[in-house]
Amino acid sequence: MPDLLIRGGLPWGRPDPLDLLLADGSIAAAGAEASARAADAEVVDAAGRLVLPGLVDAHCHLDKTLWGMPWVSHLAGDALDDRIRHDRERRAALGIPDVGRMTELITTMNEYGTTAVRTHTDVDPDAGLRGVEAVVEVAERMRGRVDVQQVAFPQHGLLTNPGTADLLEAAAGLGIEVVGGIDPAGIDGDPVRHLNVVFGLADRHGLMVDIHLHDPGTLGAWELDLVVERTRALGLAGRVAVSHAYAFAELDRGRQERTAGALAEAGVALVTAAVYDFPVPPVRLLAEAGVTLACGHDGIRDLWGPYGTGDMLDRAMHLAYRSTFRRDEDIELALRAATTGGARLLGRPDPTWDVGAPGDLLVVEAGSAAQAVVERPRDRVVVKAGRVVAGGSGGPRDGEVVRRD
Amino acid sequence: MPDLLIRGGLPWGRPDPLDLLLADGSIAAAGAEASARAADAEVVDAAGRLVLPGLVDAHCHLDKTLWGMPWVSHLAGDALDDRIRHDRERRAALGIPDVGRMTELITTMNEYGTTAVRTHTDVDPDAGLRGVEAVVEVAERMRGRVDVQQVAFPQHGLLTNPGTADLLEAAAGLGIEVVGGIDPAGIDGDPVRHLNVVFGLADRHGLMVDIHLHDPGTLGAWELDLVVERTRALGLAGRVAVSHAYAFAELDRGRQERTAGALAEAGVALVTAAVYDFPVPPVRLLAEAGVTLACGHDGIRDLWGPYGTGDMLDRAMHLAYRSTFRRDEDIELALRAATTGGARLLGRPDPTWDVGAPGDLLVVEAGSAAQAVVERPRDRVVVKAGRVVAGGSGGPRDGEVVRRD
Repeated sequence: MPDLLIRGGLPWGRPDPLDLLLADGSIAAAGAEASARAADAEVVDAAGRLVLPGLVDAHCHLDKTLWGMPWVSHLAGDALDDRIRHDRERRAALGIPDVGRMTELITTMNEYGTTAVRTHTDVDPDAGLRGVEAVVEVAERMRGRVDVQQVAFPQHGLLTNPGTADLLEAAAGLGIEVVGGIDPAGIDGDPVRHLNVVFGLADRHGLMVDIHLHDPGTLGAWELDLVVERTRALGLAGRVAVSHAYAFAELDRGRQERTAGALAEAGVALVTAAVYDFPVPPVRLLAEAGVTLACGHDGIRDLWGPYGTGDMLDRAMHLAYRSTFRRDEDIELALRAATTGGARLLGRPDPTWDVGAPGDLLVVEAGSAAQAVVERPRDRVVVKAGRVVAGGSGGPRDGEVVRRD
Repeated sequence: MPDLLIRGGLPWGRPDPLDLLLADGSIAAAGAEASARAADAEVVDAAGRLVLPGLVDAHCHLDKTLWGMPWVSHLAGDALDDRIRHDRERRAALGIPDVGRMTELITTMNEYGTTAVRTHTDVDPDAGLRGVEAVVEVAERMRGRVDVQQVAFPQHGLLTNPGTADLLEAAAGLGIEVVGGIDPAGIDGDPVRHLNVVFGLADRHGLMVDIHLHDPGTLGAWELDLVVERTRALGLAGRVAVSHAYAFAELDRGRQERTAGALAEAGVALVTAAVYDFPVPPVRLLAEAGVTLACGHDGIRDLWGPYGTGDMLDRAMHLAYRSTFRRDEDIELALRAATTGGARLLGRPDPTWDVGAPGDLLVVEAGSAAQAVVERPRDRVVVKAGRVVAGGSGGPRDGEVVRRD
């Protein structure tokens, strides 16, 4: 594979344009040295454009998607229970999970600039491990374009859905990296035992943990405390996350600051999708407290809801927008969640512009990171592990290296 | 001008495709009669596509826009006062208002399918009537493509900004159709007197009324009552609106129902933009109560915030999304606000598919209205008063009539 020179682009956070030479999957040189060593390199002309780290979709549900199908009207009622029942009733008829649709979706996500995802897969006695196996197949197909980190999780309950714990145990042997939980109180009815089962699985199999937490108010806040406690006890700092965490957003500011301190100290990350009208955690407060915040789509065109584009710049826009961020430095915090925050969540190296940093990046038609989030330009070049994998959904420009398979 | 046949499209709300013949600005025939009379007509091939009424942006601020400029970083603090000061300090240096930029923006809005707007223009002793005159000029330029309904409003205060009332009075002679107010308590400090001045202007000059109301909670709710009272007293049913009305969204459900009843009975409309994290009124409750709800962008790329695309399908998506609407019939309520609701607000005829109805419509690549809102397809054909005015930002398709000036 030839080296790749990203020429003349402005890497996010740098004051001036900087050439980047990618070799063997990583950044091999920057600036004058990059150009000097680039004689045989393939070239992406990034002059006048912004260079971002590869985007990370830190919370999606590839297995559920209806992507590429004709419009499927949503038929569920408004309550969470309605949507769980609706999902169980219709998924078989709609052929969920479908490896072809999942591949189409993640290919689109990749064309928008996503180079790594964490995807939560349903595991339950009805679905068995079909979803997990399908995601493994998709991950294999996407190798070299998108890193797929899989969470096996009990969407329809763990303690309340007998057989699910055994299936999660079995999933651990199938290449998953993360075990999930869901509303230990609100859905599963026994938060202590639910979390003990999930953390026990993580401990025995060397897995990370990611808990869906929609439980509101003081109930959800107390469950956050339980997660912190178990993370400390098992020495899992940096390997535990809570997704959604609406309860955190609902706390008063003083309690948010104390809880954020505890999350940062224990190494528990939060993940938000900023969907619908649901509470969004205070992004600036979490950044100041040193809590890792990642961002994802949640469902994309599935039985849980019809929305979602697959574009993480779009998702970063929603996060910034719901945070009422108008200033550049604030909007950049949302993009930080969709890049560095996601990389940290997945346990990957921090994206930087230093030699040795990952060669995952995105060249986009924007003068600043805030502008990229607000405008979400269609013209993108996506680089994974030092190789151009997509020329962008807007089609190639003159002189641009086009997608090569 | 030749007649125009929209052939084979599915008009929103109809069970089957229906040909529409447009002549003299209106729908002249439908179905078999349309095709029979269309021998000399220009044809838009809408087979497999959806036909929507022209979109209405019921609340924008054309005069403030920085559209088309290089990225302007937002520098204001988070409070409303900060943004008002920031606006006053920077607008002159940035050449606001600028007829060229405004024309570019509204042209983009039109290419997305907007055929009518209500735009709120700053009037104050610094700006004088420059904004009003600029909008009059833009409206003239856009004649036959977009109907521009102008509101003159005291962005920087009315009673607190001496000279503003006289300027509003003068604006009434310049072709404005609506007089505005803003936070009668929170900004202007005297709700009764503020509203009396605004309603007095409306009464004397035969204007409509549109009040910006950000005032929260019981304060804002009480101001809504004052608006209802004055609308009744002056017989202005159907000619008064409250924009934003965050207070309404904050009421408990019982009080919302009672207030919605009063608004419907008095003929007071609400307008929402569903921006940022600000409260969104309960769309379904308002529909059930018979309150006219319209939808707009609010600012688009201006000193008040950097967001906004000009696409009213995008805005309808935000309204549906913030309303946690997933089912087709709910999502359609958001689109209703961006079409029929807007038309009613502006005092225009209801868009229907009946003979005599306005010939303003949009052909879009979607199988259903909900899908159009969720996907916001780029491929659009825009018809204003029976004439194709834009072939869509996605470029013309084979056989499609392209934009003609």
